Amino acid sequence: MSAPVVGIIGAGQLARMTAQAAVSLGVCVHVLATRSGEPACAIADAVDYGDPDDPTTIRRFVRSCDVVTFDHERVLPATIEMIEAEGCAVQPSSSVMRCTDKAHQRRLFHAHGLPVPPFAEVRTAREIDQFALEHAWPVVAKTTVGGYDGRGVFVLDGPEASASLVRRLDGRPMVVEPHLAIEAELAVVVARRISGETRAYPTVETMQVDGICRETITPPRVPVELDREAVRLAVEIADTLGAVGVLAVEFFVTDAGLLINEIAPRPHNSGHWTIEGAVTSQFENHLRGILDWPLGDTALTAPAVAMVNVLGQESGVEPIDGLPAALSVPAAHVHLYAKAARPGRKLGHVTATGSDRDIALDRARRSAEALTDTSPLSSTRQGAHVAHR
Amino acid sequence: MSAPVVGIIGAGQLARMTAQAAVSLGVCVHVLATRSGEPACAIADAVDYGDPDDPTTIRRFVRSCDVVTFDHERVLPATIEMIEAEGCAVQPSSSVMRCTDKAHQRRLFHAHGLPVPPFAEVRTAREIDQFALEHAWPVVAKTTVGGYDGRGVFVLDGPEASASLVRRLDGRPMVVEPHLAIEAELAVVVARRISGETRAYPTVETMQVDGICRETITPPRVPVELDREAVRLAVEIADTLGAVGVLAVEFFVTDAGLLINEIAPRPHNSGHWTIEGAVTSQFENHLRGILDWPLGDTALTAPAVAMVNVLGQESGVEPIDGLPAALSVPAAHVHLYAKAARPGRKLGHVTATGSDRDIALDRARRSAEALTDTSPLSSTRQGAHVAHR
Repeated sequence: MSAPVVGIIGAGQLARMTAQAAVSLGVCVHVLATRSGEPACAIADAVDYGDPDDPTTIRRFVRSCDVVTFDHERVLPATIEMIEAEGCAVQPSSSVMRCTDKAHQRRLFHAHGLPVPPFAEVRTAREIDQFALEHAWPVVAKTTVGGYDGRGVFVLDGPEASASLVRRLDGRPMVVEPHLAIEAELAVVVARRISGETRAYPTVETMQVDGICRETITPPRVPVELDREAVRLAVEIADTLGAVGVLAVEFFVTDAGLLINEIAPRPHNSGHWTIEGAVTSQFENHLRGILDWPLGDTALTAPAVAMVNVLGQESGVEPIDGLPAALSVPAAHVHLYAKAARPGRKLGHVTATGSDRDIALDRARRSAEALTDTSPLSSTRQGAHVAHR
Repeated sequence: MSAPVVGIIGAGQLARMTAQAAVSLGVCVHVLATRSGEPACAIADAVDYGDPDDPTTIRRFVRSCDVVTFDHERVLPATIEMIEAEGCAVQPSSSVMRCTDKAHQRRLFHAHGLPVPPFAEVRTAREIDQFALEHAWPVVAKTTVGGYDGRGVFVLDGPEASASLVRRLDGRPMVVEPHLAIEAELAVVVARRISGETRAYPTVETMQVDGICRETITPPRVPVELDREAVRLAVEIADTLGAVGVLAVEFFVTDAGLLINEIAPRPHNSGHWTIEGAVTSQFENHLRGILDWPLGDTALTAPAVAMVNVLGQESGVEPIDGLPAALSVPAAHVHLYAKAARPGRKLGHVTATGSDRDIALDRARRSAEALTDTSPLSSTRQGAHVAHR
């Protein structure tokens, strides 16, 4: 055989890191970008430009690929079904990708007896208020599609808020759930290949701010039974869905135990730590899975691994200015996505290993902070005196 | 600052793996290739084509780069001096690159009291025979430039052989040395940044066949004093030369102790294991060094790390056909260079970690063998039954 060509719809940082992993395997990556300069464009073997919801664009793109996968979930189900109907291999399949609809996902998991929060599918303020009457205010409403990084998630404290939200969303479908008392959040990435082999990565604890994942740490600071239960549930979900490639499952830890928050059928922010922290990265295992190749070992490479996201600052500081200082932190691995700095945007991440959680987390935080530091010293803070502070 | 642009003269596998490491740092890589389809072409941010010894080509290429480095040593010293004279940063510098001339290197190390084999600079058969009279036949003659992977190295058993070689080489300069009884060969990669910080990687033992590095293993199977001495000498050489980026030093272990065989002022085959086997890879540290950024930790990530090269076979088998079988070996990391298969050509390598040398070496060998296996089963040998053999 010649080198397989993997097509990725979308050219963001997930496509960028997948393309980086593909280099080692000799696998070619073609990306479908919406505009030039997206993170994966400079790394991919070939770049096509166009609207991923335009059938002509998609038909042209998939012709060059042996298997097509995704950088994001913002692809219409009809588009994925069209690719499949043309006889092109798409992984994950349209049936798995349909689970990115939160209502469909909750309904399916509930039907399989998997632990999900109490929920209702709603479109009107009256339906939301009815749910709140049964479960108490406040409630959390989430758009069924299009939400990520906290977007499309709304905490509602009463009927006025729900009426206002429904007007704003113009009747778009939502799921509503109680405002849970969340003790911690966990995530498990599972790799699964076409022929059914699965390998779960160790559970991570994720720390969110404003709905955006800021940090992950493994092992998580929860009882080992919860850790194991999260892995068991994640593997069950991957098998139930017939997921292919990697799948991330996010959990809430509540006083009632684990509840499934949501899934993402692709490489995920909660698995970025695997590049250096696991024997095989989530990106390589995503490729292995969709190509039906044996999956790689998912074990930890160190006792503890922490990941901290680098978000764009109001100051507009460019992370690359702090790179020398960030690199001076021991065992810190910096990943920059080559994106223009805008407030709140994910511009990169830092992973650090350590002999325990506190050491790993301290290293990752110090290195990530250096990338967003605007103090006058930051750009000259290279080398020795940073290493010793 | 904006993302720095590193120019690499040459687009082989070293440039490919350097470009792959550059992705994480957000560093742009431009390569100067001689033809399309070279290993680094698909990965680099930009590719220029042309003859690296043509001044016009070089002038055009370096204009787009903040710092220029090399994929190989086949660049004329005059070319490097020309780049420097134009005010462009070149690392390693022309004075370091001049050491790739074996006669210059031997003379310099000898003058600094560094341990080198007895040698003479020769051009005529009479000079070779004279050296053999003092040291006994056979002797080893090496062309001063242009030799790699065993090319340009000749074992001569008497005056007829030396006369024949001199005729063939048409009077090209050589160094001649005794045919040493070599107990083992070691190599140390040292990273050094512009401002002087150095970090040595752990010593590897290299196993050659026909002058081509086939395998490396770390820790090496030699007394710990020799291991430490190799590291000490390699750092001394890097400091003496003022090397920048990574520098590989190859040693012979003889009954008289360590002797320096030769150096290569760039990422080196004996350092490929560092991608997974060390906290920071030689490719990332090469970039950090030439950009004068803090160097990364060079410690091992596992008790033992083995690397096995994948060479083109007479059968013409394509390594990618054996990839599924190769990936089924635990903790084996496959790197394919996307080169057309030709007998003896380096097409890729496999690195494996393990709890001891035997385990690591066995894994790396089994995985590498799968990539060159021509048995009818090889292409169907995916997954479980290979993992269990």
